[in-house]
Amino acid sequence: MNDIKKIINEIKALSTNKMFSNDFLLTWDKSDDEISATFKVAEALRMLREKNISTKIFDSGLAISLFRDNSTRTRFSFTSAANLLGLEVQDLDEGKSQIAHGETVRETSNMISFMADIIGIRDDMYIGKGNAYMRDVSSYVKEGYEDGVLEQRPTLVNLQCDIDHPTQSMADMLHIINHFGGAENLKGKKIAMSWAYSPSYGKPLSVPQGIIGLMTRFGMDVSLAHPEGYEVMDHVEDVARNNAVATGGSFIKTNNMKEAFKDADIVYPKSWAPFKAMEKRTDLYAKGDNDGIKALEKELLAQNAKHTDWECTEEMMSLTKDKKALYMHCLPADITGLSCEKGEVSESVFDRYRVPLYKEAGYKPYIIAAMMFLSKVKNPSETLNNLLNQNTNRFFG
Amino acid sequence: MNDIKKIINEIKALSTNKMFSNDFLLTWDKSDDEISATFKVAEALRMLREKNISTKIFDSGLAISLFRDNSTRTRFSFTSAANLLGLEVQDLDEGKSQIAHGETVRETSNMISFMADIIGIRDDMYIGKGNAYMRDVSSYVKEGYEDGVLEQRPTLVNLQCDIDHPTQSMADMLHIINHFGGAENLKGKKIAMSWAYSPSYGKPLSVPQGIIGLMTRFGMDVSLAHPEGYEVMDHVEDVARNNAVATGGSFIKTNNMKEAFKDADIVYPKSWAPFKAMEKRTDLYAKGDNDGIKALEKELLAQNAKHTDWECTEEMMSLTKDKKALYMHCLPADITGLSCEKGEVSESVFDRYRVPLYKEAGYKPYIIAAMMFLSKVKNPSETLNNLLNQNTNRFFG
Amino acid sequence: MNDIKKIINEIKALSTNKMFSNDFLLTWDKSDDEISATFKVAEALRMLREKNISTKIFDSGLAISLFRDNSTRTRFSFTSAANLLGLEVQDLDEGKSQIAHGETVRETSNMISFMADIIGIRDDMYIGKGNAYMRDVSSYVKEGYEDGVLEQRPTLVNLQCDIDHPTQSMADMLHIINHFGGAENLKGKKIAMSWAYSPSYGKPLSVPQGIIGLMTRFGMDVSLAHPEGYEVMDHVEDVARNNAVATGGSFIKTNNMKEAFKDADIVYPKSWAPFKAMEKRTDLYAKGDNDGIKALEKELLAQNAKHTDWECTEEMMSLTKDKKALYMHCLPADITGLSCEKGEVSESVFDRYRVPLYKEAGYKPYIIAAMMFLSKVKNPSETLNNLLNQNTNRFFG
Repeated sequence: MNDIKKIINEIKALSTNKMFSNDFLLTWDKSDDEISATFKVAEALRMLREKNISTKIFDSGLAISLFRDNSTRTRFSFTSAANLLGLEVQDLDEGKSQIAHGETVRETSNMISFMADIIGIRDDMYIGKGNAYMRDVSSYVKEGYEDGVLEQRPTLVNLQCDIDHPTQSMADMLHIINHFGGAENLKGKKIAMSWAYSPSYGKPLSVPQGIIGLMTRFGMDVSLAHPEGYEVMDHVEDVARNNAVATGGSFIKTNNMKEAFKDADIVYPKSWAPFKAMEKRTDLYAKGDNDGIKALEKELLAQNAKHTDWECTEEMMSLTKDKKALYMHCLPADITGLSCEKGEVSESVFDRYRVPLYKEAGYKPYIIAAMMFLSKVKNPSETLNNLLNQNTNRFFG
Repeated sequence: MNDIKKIINEIKALSTNKMFSNDFLLTWDKSDDEISATFKVAEALRMLREKNISTKIFDSGLAISLFRDNSTRTRFSFTSAANLLGLEVQDLDEGKSQIAHGETVRETSNMISFMADIIGIRDDMYIGKGNAYMRDVSSYVKEGYEDGVLEQRPTLVNLQCDIDHPTQSMADMLHIINHFGGAENLKGKKIAMSWAYSPSYGKPLSVPQGIIGLMTRFGMDVSLAHPEGYEVMDHVEDVARNNAVATGGSFIKTNNMKEAFKDADIVYPKSWAPFKAMEKRTDLYAKGDNDGIKALEKELLAQNAKHTDWECTEEMMSLTKDKKALYMHCLPADITGLSCEKGEVSESVFDRYRVPLYKEAGYKPYIIAAMMFLSKVKNPSETLNNLLNQNTNRFFG
Repeated sequence: MNDIKKIINEIKALSTNKMFSNDFLLTWDKSDDEISATFKVAEALRMLREKNISTKIFDSGLAISLFRDNSTRTRFSFTSAANLLGLEVQDLDEGKSQIAHGETVRETSNMISFMADIIGIRDDMYIGKGNAYMRDVSSYVKEGYEDGVLEQRPTLVNLQCDIDHPTQSMADMLHIINHFGGAENLKGKKIAMSWAYSPSYGKPLSVPQGIIGLMTRFGMDVSLAHPEGYEVMDHVEDVARNNAVATGGSFIKTNNMKEAFKDADIVYPKSWAPFKAMEKRTDLYAKGDNDGIKALEKELLAQNAKHTDWECTEEMMSLTKDKKALYMHCLPADITGLSCEKGEVSESVFDRYRVPLYKEAGYKPYIIAAMMFLSKVKNPSETLNNLLNQNTNRFFG
């Protein structure tokens, strides 16, 4: 139990009071202490569960999910996290609701929240829309709480928006921290966040943006590599640049995958759509211009097809530090010869990293649970200590 | 805690034994004591939750929901209520089941009920069908229980049928009671249940019928206003008339919205479809007459369009008692200039009442929980006392 | 309480250690002790629930369901069983996931399992695929557990595959055992598993196969009757034959329904598709040959139509032992004159057996719960005793 007690003491030393009764929408909204506390609470919850100690802090209560895009990993992670803390998930399926009926976001936000402790939203399809929608929902339920409509203030967890994918980047980062034996060992480590070829198109920008926005906070050298025309959002690049300055790391952009991979300790090759194209697509959808959408799709696939050499092959891997950088991906990856003819990564590279990749994904339920926990619990270290001392079995068979 | 103890004592004084192991299908099936007990149990459950006291009376068990029409508010209210009492919701999605397969209602009713404590049904689309379906399900699970097929008798909650919408009207009434400081203050208060224009058509009759069937029980003056041709079911009007006679109130019909609004303490302007048209539609669906359905739709929209002046405007509101009647709606409302060009209510009226409207909706989870509670618990006041004394935290973070 | 204590003692005497941390995929994978223990744990769980004693062995945890075919009974039984033991169900809806995205079974299996204690799968549409898929998932999550990706090994429950339908056949068998007052009374009893006419086609083979694979283990005389051309899988017939030899019963095949019904103690008339045709259909689907599929469908319906005399009529029933064999069906049945013009069973026969049929179905939640319980609990009798002594109320209203 000493490891749990140690981590609980570390949490006690961190300033987390602004997380209480607050949302988790962008990692760069959070202080270093808050980011650190999220990792540590995630680890503490994991340790407790591994020791078969219940971490339920709710006797009843709801966690509402709203997925405006497909999801397996995040959906199951959200349910797992809610269940771990004692909340039941109620999914808002907009198709089965009266929302089409002209109902306002303000109204829906309140109507689903009478007994909601948590709201998790994925809304990643349209540039300028997803994060804005989450902030709308947040302000409306805050207002509802202040007006006495809601008995508790539901706090939001961003399950992927147009700007950031914090549950992913935080899980990724916890994987890195554990892989390198602690956040204190990351200074000067090089990570290549690289575009990679995919035969599909229109993949969200939230992963590369989330990675450069978070990984630059740990004194790492972050290289963002992509072909010309695949730029991410300017203001997220600014976040990355400022982070790098503040922590003594660096943020470098390149149009050369090899340059990024050169001596990298970590590589994260993944396809995404150009920001400008996604912006254009959002406008076309707003106008209902189906011909325009089809034309854009064709154009984007043709553009992608010029860059099939952006693949994480063994040759590429051989450029990395000691030829064995940690390969990362948010999954599912487009694996050459397995899920597609030509994709983001060769099968032999993917296969060699399969177990670490799955472990990477396995941090997500705990990261989400930690985000929920810190938004609900006033004194996290005290509550964790109570759970430890209470020592209720999760499974008592 | 004195307010909770007081309300528990009031519940003790009411005769609720016929609610035990029984359904909640129509408010006019219930005695005054039973209606009163439902309000008081709802309030007691709310007080307990506000004091962070768990109201779980089930360690495990299922609440089955079957929605044959879209729902947001009621769906989330049903889940909230079930969760509050310790039941997990299992939704019967008829599309994913084998029901199309020619299975009888008797069989399905039993097959979903082996561990069901509660069944909630919304079936409001077809005149003469919804409530009848609920009664069928109820009789089949009662039979299943008596035959030893089911270990417990699942009790039904009507989540809206063709005749009544008791979870709505009861939540509405609890809102009125609290607004006017107690049911004892309602004698002589005037409520206008008025038709209002909507650009859509075919809205259920269950709300106006539910309102006139319930609000006439409190000695209020109930005006039902609608254009000619928008009549509701005769037998529900009879219920309203008889209630009014019994309680010293009145039930008046008018084809003049202004007359209804004149000096009203409460206004409830809401669109609905004419009963005769809904009956016709039910027949057309039964015959599979798609051309007939389309023709009827066109006819109904044209009929509606003659009455765009039936809108709850500031001018209309100025006719009401002290120009400030309580505006009510079951939501979502058709708001002129917001959700449609021309609708049931002007934006300025709606906006002024937004907070009370959301609070009105917020009673529904507790009303449903109270209906469940009273159908399952033999001695409600004793069980509420036990919950109070037991004092388990709902949230122990 | 003596009956519960008695059954717990009987469980103690059985060797069930190989069920621990193991799947339930085929009844013939299980030893006689294991089959017997499953019945007894099912009964013990039922007794505890009937005495209002909680059987929750999980404080939190997930049971994942994946239905690749429609389901009502099994879906609700699975949820009931999970809830009874304290697990929350999370359904994997492949339509709402990223699985189409080229994701491998290995990956999906791990991604949904981070906090999964149980995985239940229905995959019964394609010959040679369903059971194989379950074994793939099983081996991948076992691997994930061994690799440290998963903290617990999720165990699988077969909710119907191309070969067996163990939750159905076990529930059926428990019904038979209770009907005849104990497994020890079944020696020499005759059961007719007979094909019957249905106006639909393509019904899975898993029920007749499950029945002959299981019922031959109890020293019964099992007759499998069907028209020529409706053969089931050879290797399952081998299982049945070997079972019969081992237990002193018999396994007889016939193309004559009357012969099978003659002096039968139990009849199980049910439609299914010919094995060869199902195999062909699987190939056609694999090739995407829609014309071929349509042609096969037409051919199969025509083939069925030659055998409308394979119906369980009163006349057929009069051939059975004392004219009152126990009529069984997995439901829903095709009932002549009720769910179709001509079907598997006449309405008068079905009606007379309706209550026993519903009871037969009512064993399924407990059978599934027992399968879950035995795969999770190291010492079943001890845990059952603990639940009994702990004596927590399931409902404390």
